[in-house]
Amino acid sequence: MTQLDDRPATTTSSAAEKTAGIDTAWLGDYLLGQWADARRHARGLVARPEFQRVDDLSLAEQRERTFGQLKLLVEEGAVHRAFPKSLGGDDDHGGNIASFEEIVLADPSLQIKSGVQWGLFAAAVLHLGTERHHARLLPDILDLTTPGAFAMTETGHGSDVAAIGTTATYDEKTEEFVIHTPFRAAWKDYLGNAAQHGRAAVVFAQLITKGVNHGVHAFYLPIRDDKGFLPGVGGEDDGLKGGLNGIDNGRLHFDHVRVPREDLLNRYGDVAADGTYTSSIASPGRRFFTMIGTLVQGRVSLDGASVVSSKLALYIAITYGSQRRQFTAAKPTEEEVILDYQRHQRRLLPRLATTYAMSFAHEKLLTAFDGVFSGARATDADREDLETLAAALKPLSTWAALDILQEAREACGGAGFLAENRLTQLRADLDVYVTFEGDNNVLLQLVAKRLLTDFSRKFAKADAGALAGYVASQVGSAAVHRFGLRQLAQNVADFGSTARSVGYVRDTDSQRQLLTDRVQTMVASLAGRLRNANKLSPADAADLFNANQNELIEAARAHGQLLQWEAFTEALAEVEDAETLKVLTWLRDLFGLGLIEKNLAWYLINGRLSGQRALAITDYIDDRLLPRLRPHALDLVEAFGFVPGQVRATIASGVEKERQQEAAEYYSALRASGDAPVDEKSLTAKR
Amino acid sequence: MTQLDDRPATTTSSAAEKTAGIDTAWLGDYLLGQWADARRHARGLVARPEFQRVDDLSLAEQRERTFGQLKLLVEEGAVHRAFPKSLGGDDDHGGNIASFEEIVLADPSLQIKSGVQWGLFAAAVLHLGTERHHARLLPDILDLTTPGAFAMTETGHGSDVAAIGTTATYDEKTEEFVIHTPFRAAWKDYLGNAAQHGRAAVVFAQLITKGVNHGVHAFYLPIRDDKGFLPGVGGEDDGLKGGLNGIDNGRLHFDHVRVPREDLLNRYGDVAADGTYTSSIASPGRRFFTMIGTLVQGRVSLDGASVVSSKLALYIAITYGSQRRQFTAAKPTEEEVILDYQRHQRRLLPRLATTYAMSFAHEKLLTAFDGVFSGARATDADREDLETLAAALKPLSTWAALDILQEAREACGGAGFLAENRLTQLRADLDVYVTFEGDNNVLLQLVAKRLLTDFSRKFAKADAGALAGYVASQVGSAAVHRFGLRQLAQNVADFGSTARSVGYVRDTDSQRQLLTDRVQTMVASLAGRLRNANKLSPADAADLFNANQNELIEAARAHGQLLQWEAFTEALAEVEDAETLKVLTWLRDLFGLGLIEKNLAWYLINGRLSGQRALAITDYIDDRLLPRLRPHALDLVEAFGFVPGQVRATIASGVEKERQQEAAEYYSALRASGDAPVDEKSLTAKR
Repeated sequence: MTQLDDRPATTTSSAAEKTAGIDTAWLGDYLLGQWADARRHARGLVARPEFQRVDDLSLAEQRERTFGQLKLLVEEGAVHRAFPKSLGGDDDHGGNIASFEEIVLADPSLQIKSGVQWGLFAAAVLHLGTERHHARLLPDILDLTTPGAFAMTETGHGSDVAAIGTTATYDEKTEEFVIHTPFRAAWKDYLGNAAQHGRAAVVFAQLITKGVNHGVHAFYLPIRDDKGFLPGVGGEDDGLKGGLNGIDNGRLHFDHVRVPREDLLNRYGDVAADGTYTSSIASPGRRFFTMIGTLVQGRVSLDGASVVSSKLALYIAITYGSQRRQFTAAKPTEEEVILDYQRHQRRLLPRLATTYAMSFAHEKLLTAFDGVFSGARATDADREDLETLAAALKPLSTWAALDILQEAREACGGAGFLAENRLTQLRADLDVYVTFEGDNNVLLQLVAKRLLTDFSRKFAKADAGALAGYVASQVGSAAVHRFGLRQLAQNVADFGSTARSVGYVRDTDSQRQLLTDRVQTMVASLAGRLRNANKLSPADAADLFNANQNELIEAARAHGQLLQWEAFTEALAEVEDAETLKVLTWLRDLFGLGLIEKNLAWYLINGRLSGQRALAITDYIDDRLLPRLRPHALDLVEAFGFVPGQVRATIASGVEKERQQEAAEYYSALRASGDAPVDEKSLTAKR
Repeated sequence: MTQLDDRPATTTSSAAEKTAGIDTAWLGDYLLGQWADARRHARGLVARPEFQRVDDLSLAEQRERTFGQLKLLVEEGAVHRAFPKSLGGDDDHGGNIASFEEIVLADPSLQIKSGVQWGLFAAAVLHLGTERHHARLLPDILDLTTPGAFAMTETGHGSDVAAIGTTATYDEKTEEFVIHTPFRAAWKDYLGNAAQHGRAAVVFAQLITKGVNHGVHAFYLPIRDDKGFLPGVGGEDDGLKGGLNGIDNGRLHFDHVRVPREDLLNRYGDVAADGTYTSSIASPGRRFFTMIGTLVQGRVSLDGASVVSSKLALYIAITYGSQRRQFTAAKPTEEEVILDYQRHQRRLLPRLATTYAMSFAHEKLLTAFDGVFSGARATDADREDLETLAAALKPLSTWAALDILQEAREACGGAGFLAENRLTQLRADLDVYVTFEGDNNVLLQLVAKRLLTDFSRKFAKADAGALAGYVASQVGSAAVHRFGLRQLAQNVADFGSTARSVGYVRDTDSQRQLLTDRVQTMVASLAGRLRNANKLSPADAADLFNANQNELIEAARAHGQLLQWEAFTEALAEVEDAETLKVLTWLRDLFGLGLIEKNLAWYLINGRLSGQRALAITDYIDDRLLPRLRPHALDLVEAFGFVPGQVRATIASGVEKERQQEAAEYYSALRASGDAPVDEKSLTAKR
């Protein structure tokens, strides 16, 4: 069987591992995007050991190390970027977020703790406060003289911020606000910097003056000095967490703590000395959403950090999978490279496609964010779009990052479980990204509500009959509506022609049509079912919404996926190198067809795909896309542009290849020596 | 709107939270199964603080604590159960595993470290050694005088044990084996007890005598004394891991270490003084699989521990979800209990159904295991069935446990991320269960191969034409094969009748038919595509298998799910109480229909379900099963029988309910006082 060793490489052979292929240098720059310089600068910091996580520190040591790293960031001048030039900043909002996203490569604790200090605490003073607060408070906050907490969430209220229990009651006699925690559920909770390092906090509370509750407002409040909590302030340590243990999360509560009237962060609402409340925003609802709108910054950066982490995970798993060998199948003396196994490709390559899609979609999100925060594109509609986009993408990317980190860890076997290979710790740290800065399930419901609003606006001028007809045609019995009938014809036309089916599904316009149609139909269907909700009693309306809650969330997810697909598709338009374009188009197809494959039942039930075309999708992925992409897998992760100081995973360092080589040489020399023991199996076979 | 507060409870109201309902006491006993006493005894240990995990210990402290707990287990007489009466044991194999499975509630590190010592190291001496080894070695191993490692896996070979590089070459002159590590990839790796506590090891190596390699055999080898490694032995610490840090995993390597001939564990293969090899099993392949067959014990216990952990996760999340309130929808002054939200039910209740299915399936697996290991039902066929069953169930349950722990953690929001609520740590520890004791993807391929073998056996006597016909009828074009045509009629018959569709899908026989049919069709299809593999060159055969690898694994998964469903269905037959039976039948339906829903596209493409029936499945889950099961959710987790010392999660202790009550009373008193501030929104509305 020696001739087998010399047979030409097949598509599944590791000999095809590397081809002339794609322009990784260009692609690397392209992936870094508009704020490439900020990203490169941050990656430079990441590669320095003093910014990196150290394993097996105690909780106290981790917290001290991370706090020390915050000081180093100040020394490096790496924290002022987003702030006004008057405060030593650059007014560079996109670059600031881009830079912090990359910090996740050093240690997610550092990313999030700096996010608490500058992205939440300082940003709240900047965006919710006015000139008097900026000048007085921000210099000390920016240089970390005043570490602080962002005291919004309470034990009893996370997602429903409007319902928090902490009160700030104005006392006209002393011209002070009395900050008070009326019951245990109103303790502030999960606050970074609260357990240990925080000296002050931005506290969110119900502003009450002259017997009226004007809703949630933010107050600046010193909480601690060298000796501990200030009078009236108490708290508790949240203790060890599932990850992010470099951050000292804790609880705070207040017993009639008095703060001067001027320490209300009064940009959107103010109280005069006599207790009169004024606001530039008349609607309490809109005022509330405007104030918490600054939170979008956190969602944007979690989306970006999830992209960076997913890139790292796949860099590690695909590098290792291209070197690791296990089981002999084709050749008696050479084991297969595990990335040559179909299953291994099925596990990693669709996730690579998702990561590219997330990366391009994030660039669009960051651009929108920069537009709003720089003021360049900052109409109400721009703000609303930004919030919806962030609410759609953050859930998808944070969940995807956990999924990708986990699959990468499993694809590396036992080695993936070792801390030295980083995947488990990153996953543990990123776990909470799916529920903080907006619980993913809650965010997707916000997106669904926006989709429904847009839908009803679209049909606002149409008469009720037209709307009803549209809805009926979209959402009527799957067996009879017009799409169903149209696709029945497709079924017959395709009969026996797999090639025609494949041609259909891989076409860009077909993918767009299928993905768009699903979102539109789901939204129309929901709109139809919910259209009478405002005529019902609150209880019945709540029941009706609740009976459709799962599908609302699925519609929002489908919308987010479509946005990712569109971002990937738009990104293809910028690619000039033919080979790079070809490979990225395959990768985009893998992403798009993967989405359709995941929801195949929907397409079949609703008559959008025939069984023939549905089968063609899976076959096309398995038989064409995966084998075609396999030889480019290494290039596609090389393009992420990581250097060893950013990767820091032993198994992705080349040691596996060295070990394989050493073993192969040992066996080869042994065979050549003539001293190799005979395999009992071969004796048995000969007998 | 005050009348709303008095409206009768609807199905989605928390007032329906608890009903007369099911017989939880009976169900609790039933779930504990045949080895209930062993489980209760272990749970008694678990509830004692000295056996429990302590958070925030250093790596060294965690290891010492877990090692100390092993000694406590010895003192408690809790480790001898599976061993022969002659050694102070009970010959109780099922009870032994049942007991260790429950230990996961104390700390998975304790479960796995004791599994290393008694389930792997001691069990290898017992099952692979003979009388001389038992008498000489086991007493010290059992009482932990000799902690030891199970040195099978190497850095270079995990799943493919047959290919390990370590050699044991017999030296006739000295009547010794020379144990040697020829290259770095052949270092033993990931071994519990290797980094620190192990004094000896069972080392797996290629047995070479008289120039013939007889394959992998096990050797007993002292590795360490008080002063450290013995001459010729070296090693390395695996360091911090993603979890299970109570275990000192490490690496070992050997430089021509000599062991006496008698230290070959010689039950299945022996070497005479003159170097002659003998074995009771002629086939080297069968001999190898017999030797590593003892590993099944590990897989069985991981399956069981995954069930126990899933129960705990759902106990925590469903208890909390029944108390936690967030957002007002139906009533202005009372927030909704989060388990009343459809999405929350969709997240938790199907996973509860899966946990019940896994629990009943595990009981069957443990019974099969006990039959084989006690010798009561221990034919070759019994052994083979046990191994296939374990290989089918362990992947499903270990993956499900990670999924359930994660969803439970997310369903508890930020509180779920705190170590005090246990979910993140359990998930981190159980992570490695999906790749150790057999990588899940590799195990499922073993199952698929067995399914293919059974399929071909079934048709061995049929002529080739009959087989071809069967396959063609099963796997031909989905649009034309006979099932497709049969179901086309179903489509027409159902038209317009959702009730009839629902009646069909919720019927036990329909569920069985759908689940069974899918497995059979997938296997037949694969058999058809692979039937000529043995006529191909090894390379082409390997390519052919590889092109079907993903589907092989999916077929095995479908088979395992069918086994779980059958176990659940069989369990229903034992339920006498009518209400309990009704609720458990809903839960079984939720499991069965959930499986069908996950694979809906397959059923549609292959003509097994009409679009109408497919839609009926999702509607039946959302509109009927979830609302029906919701009021019984608490009872269904109460039946797991946990006491606070086993749960140890703050949020499941009742504090959430207390906090809600305190807050509600505060607001209620405030409203009654007449001093409540007026909501600005209500003023705006009135203007």
